[in-house]
Amino acid sequence: MPQISGIAEVALYVNDIEIATRFYEEVLGLIKTAQFGDSSFLQTGVNSTLILFQKDTLASRKSIIPAHGAEGPGHVALSIPSEEIDVWRDHLLKMNIEIEHEQDWSQGTHSIYFRDPDQNSVELIEARHYPAVWAKIHQSESETDT
Amino acid sequence: MPQISGIAEVALYVNDIEIATRFYEEVLGLIKTAQFGDSSFLQTGVNSTLILFQKDTLASRKSIIPAHGAEGPGHVALSIPSEEIDVWRDHLLKMNIEIEHEQDWSQGTHSIYFRDPDQNSVELIEARHYPAVWAKIHQSESETDT
Repeated sequence: MPQISGIAEVALYVNDIEIATRFYEEVLGLIKTAQFGDSSFLQTGVNSTLILFQKDTLASRKSIIPAHGAEGPGHVALSIPSEEIDVWRDHLLKMNIEIEHEQDWSQGTHSIYFRDPDQNSVELIEARHYPAVWAKIHQSESETDT
Repeated sequence: MPQISGIAEVALYVNDIEIATRFYEEVLGLIKTAQFGDSSFLQTGVNSTLILFQKDTLASRKSIIPAHGAEGPGHVALSIPSEEIDVWRDHLLKMNIEIEHEQDWSQGTHSIYFRDPDQNSVELIEARHYPAVWAKIHQSESETDT
């Protein structure tokens, strides 16, 4: 069986590509690496990108790339360094972003939730969260094996 | 400015959580790490997860986690090792998955596109693609600086 090694792209759908792109640049500090009128690419770390698509142009989009596009609030969780949780909270509040929820996980990790201008649910979660989840799951599996 | 280090979660919305979960397990070999009736978590590499949500239960979902949910085909690109492109194509064909499109990128990388049972657009792309994109962009920026 061949392997999946990670997530390369996540897509969110927005009403105004300029407003949404500016939000992710200014509030989250993401670097815009490309913009094509109705879509923009924002770098998320070393290996992946967030792509924003303007909803009303998706139907008329002429592209050889297979079409997609959804209505309603989507979700993405972005990884942050554990030591920057408090700095992120302060930064969001300073940018007048309403924090909708904060969550402590049983792994000892933490998430902060807020909305983008299109009501997509954006979560910042400690990067060590999923590695901790997998370690626990795969450890208990190997214990069952023995 | 605090940092974003990657993507931790991507969400896709599906009509039947059992059928969709089985697709990602059997066709993509993803390991299901949790299932909660109307959602399932599938590990994508070391640091991230794909979460499937059943659409018709989202509105009545009782959760302290902020709500989301979209109608229409979404998109995710999953990273694969470059040396496994041909193995992935063979595997998909063997599983009777229709390959909708293949794309060569100017970075010398390659993508394979197909649909999940809910018409979400799934892309397999070489893991080295975005690091190559960033390297080129950030190199040309530093050239402009000097």
